[in-house]
Amino acid sequence: MQRTVFFISDSTGITAETIGNSILAQFEGLRFDKHRLPFIDDTHKAEAAALRIKTHYAKSGERPIVVNTMADRALCDIVAASGALMLDVFAPFIGPLETELGAKRSGAVNRSHGLVDFEKYEARINATNYALSHDDGIDVDYAQADLILVGVSRSGKTPTCLYMALHYGVSAANYPLTDEDLEKLELPARLRPYRDRLFGLTIEPERLAQIREQRRAGSRYATLKQCRWELEQADRLMRQAGIPSLNTTHVSIEEIASKIFASFGIERTMY
Amino acid sequence: MQRTVFFISDSTGITAETIGNSILAQFEGLRFDKHRLPFIDDTHKAEAAALRIKTHYAKSGERPIVVNTMADRALCDIVAASGALMLDVFAPFIGPLETELGAKRSGAVNRSHGLVDFEKYEARINATNYALSHDDGIDVDYAQADLILVGVSRSGKTPTCLYMALHYGVSAANYPLTDEDLEKLELPARLRPYRDRLFGLTIEPERLAQIREQRRAGSRYATLKQCRWELEQADRLMRQAGIPSLNTTHVSIEEIASKIFASFGIERTMY
Repeated sequence: MQRTVFFISDSTGITAETIGNSILAQFEGLRFDKHRLPFIDDTHKAEAAALRIKTHYAKSGERPIVVNTMADRALCDIVAASGALMLDVFAPFIGPLETELGAKRSGAVNRSHGLVDFEKYEARINATNYALSHDDGIDVDYAQADLILVGVSRSGKTPTCLYMALHYGVSAANYPLTDEDLEKLELPARLRPYRDRLFGLTIEPERLAQIREQRRAGSRYATLKQCRWELEQADRLMRQAGIPSLNTTHVSIEEIASKIFASFGIERTMY
Repeated sequence: MQRTVFFISDSTGITAETIGNSILAQFEGLRFDKHRLPFIDDTHKAEAAALRIKTHYAKSGERPIVVNTMADRALCDIVAASGALMLDVFAPFIGPLETELGAKRSGAVNRSHGLVDFEKYEARINATNYALSHDDGIDVDYAQADLILVGVSRSGKTPTCLYMALHYGVSAANYPLTDEDLEKLELPARLRPYRDRLFGLTIEPERLAQIREQRRAGSRYATLKQCRWELEQADRLMRQAGIPSLNTTHVSIEEIASKIFASFGIERTMY
């Protein structure tokens, strides 16, 4: 039996969803049917949302759960009238903060993500462009890189670089280890000046073979034997060169990024 | 006077940071000095974090604020002993949920982002690869696209596609309007079969000129006149073709993505 959860927000719903998912994940073994209702910022939309939740309740007979970040009390009340269990994300923290800061919250709708800051936006976009143009290791100048991910093909370098760029404005390049590097057990000369910015990604050979098989079915590239050889050599190379590394097999992109930042002592906060 | 805020977590700290930023943004005009302390998952690390917070408190004389998602009560107590204002993100919601669900939270450390689900991970990676290989509009087959972003160069298509892919596993292609399209006021033939999957991004001409100037200083491409012409023609073309569109000038990437999903009735939740 799945319980239905609605993430409701006057903005994107990302905060409601992030905290909602975190809380629900603590109830292991239970499954939830999740819906996001963003931009609920007027009476009309709140009533439509309430009707939908109420209908769901009547049909399933199970009380829906609402994770709510709407700031406007009147809108909250409309949704609460649906009979759902209301979890108001901000409510418990506003009082203690108002006391501590000696200031009143503004309470305006759509404030939850702040206004767009051009400077920060630019940093994200520039870093994303950097990641896109420094992705294949060919003819790449690494001088401007905040950090450089090293690993065999399909070990997760590209999505990790893009994630770090999009969210943290970190200019991350990547270098795919070639067969030549792996045979020689040597880093290419143009990486050596940046050794303290290198971070290695590894992965279990079975998982790598599975990913590669999806990409090029039946190829030598996708055989378990080839994957095993590449990963063993890569591991050796990284240890010899003193490059810190992380096995990404059971780790989400978000965690990979956080662990890399922690390894370099980067405490950058999200944009 | 800036108040110092620490986002503390036994995992990545993304949840602490997301909700913390949302709460702090409601206190307009105040500025905060933010730090993220992720992976605080044992007594030793908790004590180090507490010492750091305490030292900060002593130096500044202002009580630091801690936004906390650590699940382990003993670790929370260690950090709380620093004297900071503790905002425990999960605490207020666990009780009501336990009652509602008739189940106890598992309380394990590092649960907050759930385990990595290979299927979901694959969806994200495949969508990201799709976005990367369908980015420039050249020789692109749009048949597999969930949606296709249309707009002039530097209107924000690429980062938006990457964001939707990385976070929602949505396969988003993009098509940069060419001078020819803009002169003829016609969509290219190969986009026409997918008209119901098109979404337009626009931007204010002043902002576009500024972005392009950064990219190619002094070029005709970056002149306000050229930007204005392109955007006016693009606007006309989109209206004629019945393509919904969004002005991205004052909107974050997260909001752009959420508004596009809302426009298509996509309620997909985040990975």
